[in-house]
Formats: sequence, structure tokens, C-alpha cells
Amino acid sequence: MESIRQFGLRGVNAVATRSWWGWGNIEDAVVGAERAALTARVAAMLPNADLTVHEPPQLASLTVADSRLEAPAPLAALASQDLADRVSHGRGQAFRDVVRNLLGRVEDIPDLVLRPGTEQDVVDIVDWCGDAGIALIPFGGGTSVVGGVEPRNCSDYAGTASLDLGRLDRIVEVDRTSRAARIQAGIFGPVLEAGLRPDGLTLRHFPQSFEFSTLGGWLATRAGGHYATLNTHIDDLVESMRVVTPVGISESRRLPGSGAGPSPDRLFLGSEGTLGVITEAWMRLQDRPRWRAGASVLFDDYGQAVAATRTIAQSGLFPTNCRLLDPVEAFLNAGTQSAGGVLVLGFESADHPVEESMRRAEQICLDHGGRLPDGISLTDSAAQAARPGAADTWRSSFLRMPYQRDAMAAQSMIVETFETACTWDRFDELRAAVLAAATAAFTSTGTVGVVSCRFSHVYPDGPAPYFGIYAAGRWGQTVEQWDEIKIAVSEALITSGATITHHHAVGRDHRPWYDRQRPEPFAVALRAAKSALDPAGILNPGVLIDPTKVEHTA
Amino acid sequence: MESIRQFGLRGVNAVATRSWWGWGNIEDAVVGAERAALTARVAAMLPNADLTVHEPPQLASLTVADSRLEAPAPLAALASQDLADRVSHGRGQAFRDVVRNLLGRVEDIPDLVLRPGTEQDVVDIVDWCGDAGIALIPFGGGTSVVGGVEPRNCSDYAGTASLDLGRLDRIVEVDRTSRAARIQAGIFGPVLEAGLRPDGLTLRHFPQSFEFSTLGGWLATRAGGHYATLNTHIDDLVESMRVVTPVGISESRRLPGSGAGPSPDRLFLGSEGTLGVITEAWMRLQDRPRWRAGASVLFDDYGQAVAATRTIAQSGLFPTNCRLLDPVEAFLNAGTQSAGGVLVLGFESADHPVEESMRRAEQICLDHGGRLPDGISLTDSAAQAARPGAADTWRSSFLRMPYQRDAMAAQSMIVETFETACTWDRFDELRAAVLAAATAAFTSTGTVGVVSCRFSHVYPDGPAPYFGIYAAGRWGQTVEQWDEIKIAVSEALITSGATITHHHAVGRDHRPWYDRQRPEPFAVALRAAKSALDPAGILNPGVLIDPTKVEHTA
Repeated sequence: MESIRQFGLRGVNAVATRSWWGWGNIEDAVVGAERAALTARVAAMLPNADLTVHEPPQLASLTVADSRLEAPAPLAALASQDLADRVSHGRGQAFRDVVRNLLGRVEDIPDLVLRPGTEQDVVDIVDWCGDAGIALIPFGGGTSVVGGVEPRNCSDYAGTASLDLGRLDRIVEVDRTSRAARIQAGIFGPVLEAGLRPDGLTLRHFPQSFEFSTLGGWLATRAGGHYATLNTHIDDLVESMRVVTPVGISESRRLPGSGAGPSPDRLFLGSEGTLGVITEAWMRLQDRPRWRAGASVLFDDYGQAVAATRTIAQSGLFPTNCRLLDPVEAFLNAGTQSAGGVLVLGFESADHPVEESMRRAEQICLDHGGRLPDGISLTDSAAQAARPGAADTWRSSFLRMPYQRDAMAAQSMIVETFETACTWDRFDELRAAVLAAATAAFTSTGTVGVVSCRFSHVYPDGPAPYFGIYAAGRWGQTVEQWDEIKIAVSEALITSGATITHHHAVGRDHRPWYDRQRPEPFAVALRAAKSALDPAGILNPGVLIDPTKVEHTA
Repeated sequence: MESIRQFGLRGVNAVATRSWWGWGNIEDAVVGAERAALTARVAAMLPNADLTVHEPPQLASLTVADSRLEAPAPLAALASQDLADRVSHGRGQAFRDVVRNLLGRVEDIPDLVLRPGTEQDVVDIVDWCGDAGIALIPFGGGTSVVGGVEPRNCSDYAGTASLDLGRLDRIVEVDRTSRAARIQAGIFGPVLEAGLRPDGLTLRHFPQSFEFSTLGGWLATRAGGHYATLNTHIDDLVESMRVVTPVGISESRRLPGSGAGPSPDRLFLGSEGTLGVITEAWMRLQDRPRWRAGASVLFDDYGQAVAATRTIAQSGLFPTNCRLLDPVEAFLNAGTQSAGGVLVLGFESADHPVEESMRRAEQICLDHGGRLPDGISLTDSAAQAARPGAADTWRSSFLRMPYQRDAMAAQSMIVETFETACTWDRFDELRAAVLAAATAAFTSTGTVGVVSCRFSHVYPDGPAPYFGIYAAGRWGQTVEQWDEIKIAVSEALITSGATITHHHAVGRDHRPWYDRQRPEPFAVALRAAKSALDPAGILNPGVLIDPTKVEHTA
């Protein structure tokens, strides 16, 4: 289980209690000495912040509207009107979601939570919702940070239902020769990896939400994962998909590559539950890596650090990890002081040693003024146990971040992120625009904050910058303060030519900027496709696209 | 110019005469001693073949219908009714196209050839055709082998026009930092590469049609190129696209990666002119490679050769060239006798030596019983001129094939290909099914022939097999004989779970099998998108999808 434990899992069958209001498991929350240390770090950075701890309300104390829906008899066994179910399926895990929960502001929760046990159940549910005019919202693991699972603005529907595929959680078939497996969409990351391990295989898709998100959710949102280069998005790991649409089941062929018309899978990837419900997929797998190399490279000059990172991204070396942390990010999340930031590099292979690639990347860094005070770590897991290296430190910190975010959110801090991508030629300007917009918004909202930047992924033609916002807010107003910062920075992203999202999806929260980003003829095509596949307009309404208006009479 | 000459180009500005009936330039046709040698090789393989040479008819002797269209005054300067223009834009470069030309069977040619000089010209042409009910067929370079540019079954249109973007052939802008360039869609391969060379850049997209096909054609058909692994299709080299649709211009953002909804570019990639006309694209470029390594590996057992190739495809070594030729292919196109076939391997890099990768691939081959009688060739173009190696021999042969095909087509030979892809677990069965179907079809059509197989590209989860058909037909009937073989083998591809095309597109010829391959809900979505973007149904009708029927009254 060691590899799964590395990803913070308590063990696939361990008992843990999911928080109804915040990230992950209650048992893993940041408390005690860890919270005190975190509070002290934040206080050092933002000395005037009021970091009083606010406790979440009791679930039973919440005032919520009664469910308007009763499942028909054949679906009754799949349906729940339980308060905890409805509340925990009512929103995702964005900062604004967590804070609204903390404040007891629980509106727009689904009338029903539906848990199909078979694909036919999904078909029956889709049919019922279509006939009855019920908005149906696929839930995945519910870790959306863009309002993707929240039944907002659904007043012209007969009701709202959350579709939780958690019971469809099996690895159905493994093809060892082609290194692929047919996997049900409701499987969570740790269960998936544990199931592949006996065959020596791994999907190696490790988003920050890994423990609490599902394969179907990753596919529907084009999630970004483990690989900093090459297979950055889940898209490239898909061999074929099965999708239940209101007009029938779509199943693409298992093909390693094809040029037969526009890719069917690429229409459903990123469709965020608006075109159909993904029930299973054949996924491309990897052999478990044996050789690893890693290093942390310190720079005195951030421009040089960016240039080194770009050179590596364009080298064809394809590091697995290539995360450039700017000085703020390095200090906050890796505890490292460095005027020009830190580049965390990692290589891995199941087939051959990776030292030569690491040495070449090191040379590129040295050529740009980088320093490697701890040198390079090389491991061969067949010969030795992997020692904790920079990548491990980063990974632990990475998976801990959402818990820390929740602790700080309860102490009036505004802790959120922007993630985007742009071409290399535009990066300096983009970063400056984001810093300026955030700083101005801090002032106008009466907050004081800092902005950090790391590259979550890098491409030959540009980075995917991930900006962290840490600001001291006023308790009770941090959602509104955040929303104003969000508008200002999103505007900066769009006017700088970047994308409103690199791997967090569009959902409801990114719609105003997504609508400006996408080419209008593509919107015309997507709207037409949506109307044809979902004529009743029941699938996740409000996400991505407004369907042609449908009258719901049921 | 040396690198361009390697690809068979006469020189960008050299004078050459395009053949109206067959492949490429008249000056490059297979004649004299080359033809005699080729004829002798074929005669040795198929001793009873009647290889009498048949000459093409004179262009002026062809009987063709008069043009039914007159361009309106503002477009008159862009329009041609010239016989040679109309005939040469009436079909592609498939075997059946060439033979029909040789037989003087020239039907269904466009009424007009239109040559826009600006994007606004394209908009005006699309508007005119929409208003007048004229079928508009984007031509690219006209190397379609699937009936993609042939105005067949267009009787319910007011006429047909071929859209030749050859005048839109400029590299508009180069972003050296991000290694990308904005390039007009009508540019041909050699002009594109020559234009990038001063910046030390290359697109490195070298389909067999490289000299005579265009960027826009590559994008519209999801062309396969140089790279045997990783960026196999042009799709992955696209940063953004501009497409003129009847409802407006679609322009995606320049982004190295994005997760904002389904990818707009992926809808237009592979749309084969049915959704819009691609006018330009920002393409991701490469630095020109400096280090190269290559080898030819002989195997005694084909199963072992396949296993070695699969292991390399799954190794993460990412060879640039990884073409496994079966014994028939090795003999016919590389002149090599080997009971288990030949694996042609190549590595290249602009950043670092590739010997270590080559040595590891060699070891994998040795582990599977491979032999390297000529060893490994290593070159560093900064230190030495590249010596011709196995990859060069292969490349020359590769670019010469269409000319040889034409020579043999005029000698009653049936020379064509099937290209597909499947997962590794299915390859043996697929190959057996294709051989059985082709052999049975040889018998039923009264031909005698052989089938070869090479892998054009390989993926971790499967190969892209490329089957060659060489059969002795009866002059005057080879098109019908081929069509019967085509039906039998296409059936085998589809029933074996493979794709009807890996990189030759769907066009009109692959429609019956494509319609069975694609998921029906995707067809519903595509049809809706088509109707929304092209309400008059004028764009390349009959390709990919039948639009909702539109009454044309003009």
C-alpha cells in the first residue's frame, strides 16, 4: 500500500468521515499544533489579519427547503432525500462553497440524490428526468471548484437531482497487452490505483483532488494530472468512452489513434455533464515506474528561471515534474527562500534509467544560473527503497493544501487559485496583469494579500501558470470580497489572451469569461449538439452553454 | 536546400508541370530504366500479369459537360472555367481516381475553380455559394485518396465549385520564443519548411503527400506525419485555428493547453471541409534536429518483431521512426529479405544526443531475437554531414511510391492501401482477417495479388497498420476489381474493431464504414452542428455526414 499512502490515502477500506462542509475527511482536518503553525506563518505574512477561528454550524441546524421530488417506484431504491446527502451534493469544494457552508448559507441543494447501481439505472434516471423536466446534475466526486455541481438557477425545472455514480466503481476488464483497462466512471482515484496494482499497472493521473474525485469527473472536466509534460490532461489517456445521452448510448471504439472525422471522445471530454453521463471508459495505462530522478533548482533571477523552464519544456526531455515555484510560492508551500524561485524537476521511467535526462536538464538549469544545493536524487526501486526527495515533499504539501485552505477559510482568510495557460511570449505580461488586477482588487475590497505563482504544467509553446491568492478578509464578507477579486483577475486573464481555465473546467462560475473566450461559431455548434442530444435541456443546465429554451410542463 | 531536397522537392521555385491525371510532376514520372526495373520486380512476383503500358488520353480529347456556373462580377477574377483546372480539381489521387483519369472517365468535375487571394474572398465565396445553392468543396492540395474533393452526387445543387486556397500561402508571423507560427492554410509542405528554415524551425510534418498537399488539407483531414510516436497526427501540432463558416469566422485562442469545455479545434480538425474553410492556423514548431540515430533490425519471426515493436512503443523512448515492415513490405519497398520483417528505427533531437535511447531500443530488439547487420548509425549534424542511413533509404522509397503506383496503374496493376489502427491485443486477428478478405477478393475478382503490411505509426496501446495491395488486374476493369477488394477488406477492418482510417480521412469513399464505426449519438451531434454552421448545406456535401435536407431554389 506504500504507493497509495504516498498520496495521503488512509487505506482504501479505512474508516473515515467525509466533511459535509469542507474538503475531505474530518479526521484529516488541520487542527492543533499544525493549525497553530499555519496560523503563525500567515500572521507573519499578514500581521494585521484577524485569524479568529470560526466553527462550522451543525448540520441539523441548517434551514433548507423540503424536497420537491419523489422518485417513481422503480427508482425509489436509488434515491435519497436525506439532509446530509442533499447538502453535501449541493455544491463543490471551491473557497466560496466552503465559506458559504461555514456561514450556514445553504441554498440551491438538490431535491434528490440518485445513486444508480448499473448503467441501465442511469438510462432510466435520464429518461425519467427528461420526461418530468427535472434538472439532472452528474456529481462525480463533487470536488468541482467552478460551481459545476450546484443546482443554481433551476427554477424553471420541476426539481433538481444530483446523480452520484459512486456505486459504479469497478475495474471491469484489464488488457495487459495493450496496457488498457475498462473502468467504471464512479471509481475514486485510490480505489482505481489499488485495483490496477496487481497487474503492475497505473493510470498515473494524480490531480490534487485524487482521493475524492472520480474517473468520470476527470473525463467530464478534462482534469489535469500528474504529468507536467506530455499527457498533462486526462484527455490523452482515454482510449474509448461510453456515455449515456438522452437519445441513446454513445460508445466509441477502442483505438490507439484514429483520423475518422472529428474525434467523438473530444466532444464529450470537457462537456461537464451537459451532453451525457459518462458511465465507463477504456483508459490507457502505464507500467509502474522503477527509475526516478529528481532535483530542486534554486534561481536568483525569476526571468532566468522561466527561461530555463521554457528550454526544458522545449527540449524533448519530457520531465514528469517540472513545477516552477515563484519566490512567494516557494516560501509558502515549500518553505524555501529563493529570490528567483525554485524549479522542482522529476523524471521517471518503468523501462530505463533516467539519469542522463536529469543531467541534461540540470545542465540547462546551470546554464541559466540555477543552483542545486542538494544535488540530484536517483532511485531504482528494484534496488532500493525510494528516499523522500523534493518531489515527495512537494506532493505531501500538494495534497495537504485543500485542508489548509479550509482551516484558513474558517479564519477569515481568502485562499483561492486561478489556473490558466498562455504562450511563452505572453507570460511576463500575463503575470504582471494578474498581479496588478489582484492587488487593485485587494485595495478595493479592503483586504491585504499576496499572490503566488507556480507552473502546474509546461508545454513547448507555453506554461500553465497557477496563481495562489492569500488575503486577509472580513468574516462574513469573504465570499463577496473573493467574488470581486475573481472578476478582476478573470478579466485580466481574458484580456491577456490566456484561458479562463487550464484544468478546473468552466462550470457555472467561469461562464461569463468562457463565453467571451470560445469562438462564437463553436458556441453555435455546441448549442446545436446540446439541443440534439438533450432535447429536454435537463443535463446540468447553466454549465458551459445555455440550451435552446425548452418549456417544461411536468 | 539540402534538407528540402531530401524530401524529393525540385526546389521551391523550380519549374515543373503537374500531371493532370496522376501524382505529382510529369518530369518525375517513373519512366525508362526505372520503369523497366519496377516492371521486372512486379513480373517476378506476379509472373502471369499483363504489364502492357497504357498511355493517358490527351486532356483536349476528354468529353466533359460545360460549366453551369458564372461567378458574379466581384468574384470573377478569382474564378476559372479552364478545362485543365476543372479536370484537375475534379478528383483526388487515389488509385481509382488515377485509373479513371487514365481511362478518360472524367465525370463530376466542378463547374468552377475559385482561387481566393484573401480571407475576405473566402467569406464572399462562402456567402455567394450559400445564397446560390452551390456545393463548395475545399480542395487543399487535392491529394485526397478518399473521394474527399470530388463533386459527386451534387445534382440537387445549382452547381459545384472547387475552392483552391493555393494563393493563401504565406507564413504570416513567427513567435520564436513560443516556437510557433501563424501560417495560411493554402501553403504547400516544401514552401512551409523553406519559410521556417531561416528561423531554425521546422513543423516536421511529412506525410507521403508532403510536396503536393497543404496545411489546410492536413488539418481538415487529421493527416498523419513524420513522427511514428507522440505527435503522430497534425492535431497535436495545432495551437489555434481560424475557420470561415457560413455563420461567421471561428478563431480559437493561441493556447498551449486548455480545459475550457470541449476543444473547439478538435471539432474542426477532421471536419473535412464540411463545417467551414480553414484559412490559417498557429502551428507548434520544432527546432531543427541535430542529433540522430537509426538502425534497421531484422527478425526471423514476425511475432517477435511485433512484440519488440510493442515493447518499444510502451517504453517511453519515443522514437521518431518505428516502422515495422512485414516480410512482403520489406522485400517490395526496401529490397530486404527477412523471414520476420524489418524494423526501421530512428531517433532525433535538437537538444541532446540520442545514442542512449537508441541503445536501449536495440537491446529490446536483441531481447526479441532481432539482428542489426549494419549496426547503429549515429550522426551529429553540427560535426558531420549526415550519411544516408536506413531512414533515408526508407524516405526516398516512401516519397517515390505514388509515382510507382501510377506507373503500375497504367500497366493494369491494382496498387492501393488500407491504413487503420487497433489495440495490440487485436492485431494478429486483424492482420489475419485483412489477409483472408483480400485473398478471397483476389479470387472472386479474378486477380492474383499479394498483401504487405507495415506500421506507419505506433502507440503504447496499439499499432497503425498500413496494408499494401498489389494485384494483377484486367485493363479497363481494375477500378471495379479494386472496389470489390475495397469492400471486402473494409468490412474486415470494421468487424475486427479497427478504424476505417487512421490518417487518410473519410471523404466519400469511406462513408459506409465510417457510418457504422462512429457512435450514433455523436452522428446526431455532428449533424446538428453541421446544420447550425452550414444551414444551406453547401460545404462539401456527402462527406462525413448527410446534412438535414435543404431545398436549394437558386
